[in-house]
Amino acid sequence: MKSSPYNDDTIAAISTPPGEGGVAIIRISGPEAVTVADRIFRGRSPLSAAIPGKMCLGHVVENCETASANAKTRKVEIVIDEVFATIFIAPRSYTGEDVVELSGHGGVYVSRRVLESVLSAGARLACPGEFTQRAFLNGRMDLTRAQAVADLIHARSESARRVAMGQLGGRLSDVINGFRQSLIDVCGRLEIELDFIEEDIEVIDKNDLKDELVNVVDQIDKLMDTYERGRVCREGVKLVILGKPNVGKSSLLNALLASERAIVTDTPGTTRDTIEGHVDLEGLLVTITDTAGIRKSPDPIEQEGVRRSEAAARQAGIVVVVVDGSREISSEDRDVIELARSLAVPMLMVLNKSDLPQHRLPDNVADAEMTLLVSALEGTGIEALAQSIKDHALGDGLPGVDDVVVAHLQHLQSLKRTKGAIEQALASISQTMSQEFIALDLRVALDALGEITGETTTDDILHHIFDSFCIGK
Amino acid sequence: MKSSPYNDDTIAAISTPPGEGGVAIIRISGPEAVTVADRIFRGRSPLSAAIPGKMCLGHVVENCETASANAKTRKVEIVIDEVFATIFIAPRSYTGEDVVELSGHGGVYVSRRVLESVLSAGARLACPGEFTQRAFLNGRMDLTRAQAVADLIHARSESARRVAMGQLGGRLSDVINGFRQSLIDVCGRLEIELDFIEEDIEVIDKNDLKDELVNVVDQIDKLMDTYERGRVCREGVKLVILGKPNVGKSSLLNALLASERAIVTDTPGTTRDTIEGHVDLEGLLVTITDTAGIRKSPDPIEQEGVRRSEAAARQAGIVVVVVDGSREISSEDRDVIELARSLAVPMLMVLNKSDLPQHRLPDNVADAEMTLLVSALEGTGIEALAQSIKDHALGDGLPGVDDVVVAHLQHLQSLKRTKGAIEQALASISQTMSQEFIALDLRVALDALGEITGETTTDDILHHIFDSFCIGK
Repeated sequence: MKSSPYNDDTIAAISTPPGEGGVAIIRISGPEAVTVADRIFRGRSPLSAAIPGKMCLGHVVENCETASANAKTRKVEIVIDEVFATIFIAPRSYTGEDVVELSGHGGVYVSRRVLESVLSAGARLACPGEFTQRAFLNGRMDLTRAQAVADLIHARSESARRVAMGQLGGRLSDVINGFRQSLIDVCGRLEIELDFIEEDIEVIDKNDLKDELVNVVDQIDKLMDTYERGRVCREGVKLVILGKPNVGKSSLLNALLASERAIVTDTPGTTRDTIEGHVDLEGLLVTITDTAGIRKSPDPIEQEGVRRSEAAARQAGIVVVVVDGSREISSEDRDVIELARSLAVPMLMVLNKSDLPQHRLPDNVADAEMTLLVSALEGTGIEALAQSIKDHALGDGLPGVDDVVVAHLQHLQSLKRTKGAIEQALASISQTMSQEFIALDLRVALDALGEITGETTTDDILHHIFDSFCIGK
Repeated sequence: MKSSPYNDDTIAAISTPPGEGGVAIIRISGPEAVTVADRIFRGRSPLSAAIPGKMCLGHVVENCETASANAKTRKVEIVIDEVFATIFIAPRSYTGEDVVELSGHGGVYVSRRVLESVLSAGARLACPGEFTQRAFLNGRMDLTRAQAVADLIHARSESARRVAMGQLGGRLSDVINGFRQSLIDVCGRLEIELDFIEEDIEVIDKNDLKDELVNVVDQIDKLMDTYERGRVCREGVKLVILGKPNVGKSSLLNALLASERAIVTDTPGTTRDTIEGHVDLEGLLVTITDTAGIRKSPDPIEQEGVRRSEAAARQAGIVVVVVDGSREISSEDRDVIELARSLAVPMLMVLNKSDLPQHRLPDNVADAEMTLLVSALEGTGIEALAQSIKDHALGDGLPGVDDVVVAHLQHLQSLKRTKGAIEQALASISQTMSQEFIALDLRVALDALGEITGETTTDDILHHIFDSFCIGK
């Protein structure tokens, strides 16, 4: 499947974001890409004669009937847009197929008209992610890199960009392929043994094989350990502010939003009972949710608010519990702390209103290093809180140039299955089972690794991955 | 000013629309464009050695300090994005300066980071329209074509696109330059006469000059006559539905929106008392406003509604008066018709509820050809109404391939001044005034024409024009 084009039709889409801008790119890919483009492109010479990768100035035209003087209709070509056209010839293109890129004026209407011309000349509208899907199916990039394209486009923070760019650069592929190679080596050695099986000679040292496999498992463990960090880098972290009423939770949210680089996101307009804001903490996207104050109340509306606060807390990656440091800690505060502790995520304790005289916190309430004195009103302690949030969410800072991290749950699951199958192989070796069984275990492990790079990925996973793309990529 | 670059600095901006897409283009222009790009681009070879117009694959990088093993910081280059870079060398570029285009992944964050790298390498963020302004100032396009770039990007209908594309193609420039040439010829012949002034010989035939100038005035008149059509093509037409309460105005709006290609526009969210919709009537953008029912009422709130309906009507390019055809025409209907007649715009009369038995309309109420039987409820007569709207808004249909139309008020005003100055020259000739006076009149006419093509445009007009551009064009 990978060596031949996935589809034999020619697809087209607007590849730039929708809206008004200086430039819009209409991309065409497929065996007929150049032929289709030449039907509607008028330049100095046809695109079939153009140098690949070189921009050619010209017009996109459309046939149009007009009434002429003698009332007969005649066909004329009307100019739709002035464009630069660039051809790329298979396999040296993004998709591995023939590709034409038309770079025209970035208007909503005019770019749609150029696309319509291309479609009427014989191309089909591309599905979301279909260009990248073809690149993958034609062997231009493996699945980890195809996924990284979408990750890079969707990245909203430096940490997400770094993880995506690292994966696009092929570091994850390299590591996975290293594992594959080790397993294939072991399989090869098992086969040699198989050849000598009649002669009952132990050709290979089983302990060598075991060492090799244990080594791969160790490396897989190390890679799996990067998942939590990778996930936080890619998705950001959800921070939930909890506290009883009137301890200054909203002021704390506002102080954090004001002190850090606030991010405007276009979340679809769902009604929320909790208030959300986004900040960029030195490259980490933090979504901060302020919740309704938590306390026991007979009022059913307030009970519902408390229920929602608790639901928000259960989604949190970090919880900040706010207490009023100028008052004695109450049983309501303790209830909130107990709730926060039950969540099994890092809990930071903020003693707010540090501008007022402070009560001493009882020893058993929170770890000293997790407790911060803050005045949301005056902004003091906010920087330290931000630093503490970042430290707890992303211990080792942003990924470095050479770091390999796993950032997709799907990858983690495939790695787990790989590890399980290798451990099964190790058990089979220990039980001196026949080589066929060991080879079968290793085949399962190789298939699980192949799901990551796309060698053995099911259609379901592929659909799921490419559906998350935008149209035009 | 036009022969040398306007500014000696290097500018950069994201040229694609904001948002997520497959591709984002970051454009750099100015004397240092290639140098700036080479500071952050890592490809097979530096861009200074690249072939103009040829895409070069590479990475945009940024210097970054990281802690190394021995705790000393070391500088490393981190990859920001994988891009295609294309250079264009002055004067063969859009702006007439050296230009570099970086085509990277179309993410909001990653494209901003590429731009930040470019800016940190020595470019300045471009102002809206600054690339096109430089193209104009460097003589790469005249002002009519620079304006057409913005018109094309802002076009939301086929009629607007055609007018913009025609103007971008240079047809308006050609006509204006034809006028200029005629006037310059006349000036030249006046100068010859000036040389012979001592000898009191009539070297040139004044009647020839007059014929020539009258001819130019005739052509200017014809061009000015295209303005109303050009304006409607470019801006669309505002249609206001008027009527007394309960004649079916909202149903008519909905029937028009349902039958034609409805357009979604992102008008900033202003509160409206009238309901608006947009349709594309075979290439013409029609904004339809439904108004509150008009009748005499003692209720102050209803009075305010009526006042606003009347205000909306005064903005209309076409008015549709709706009466209930199943009932006798009332004095309230007659009041609405009188209001509509006072507006001096085409008035269409819709006898709604044609599904019910119809009353005969008194003869003096409306022209038969402007009256249409409609059932908004059942959708009958809506197509005929749409056709009638289009006929009245845009009599001759969409502009053809060779049509030259004036679509900007500023152009109309310059043409009026040109015509006035030529008529002044004609008067001077008739009064046998000395050639200097005639030449002075013609100089005023030439300056007025030059405002259109940009030869004599004031800074105020230039600012006004280029401020309407988006950033990155």
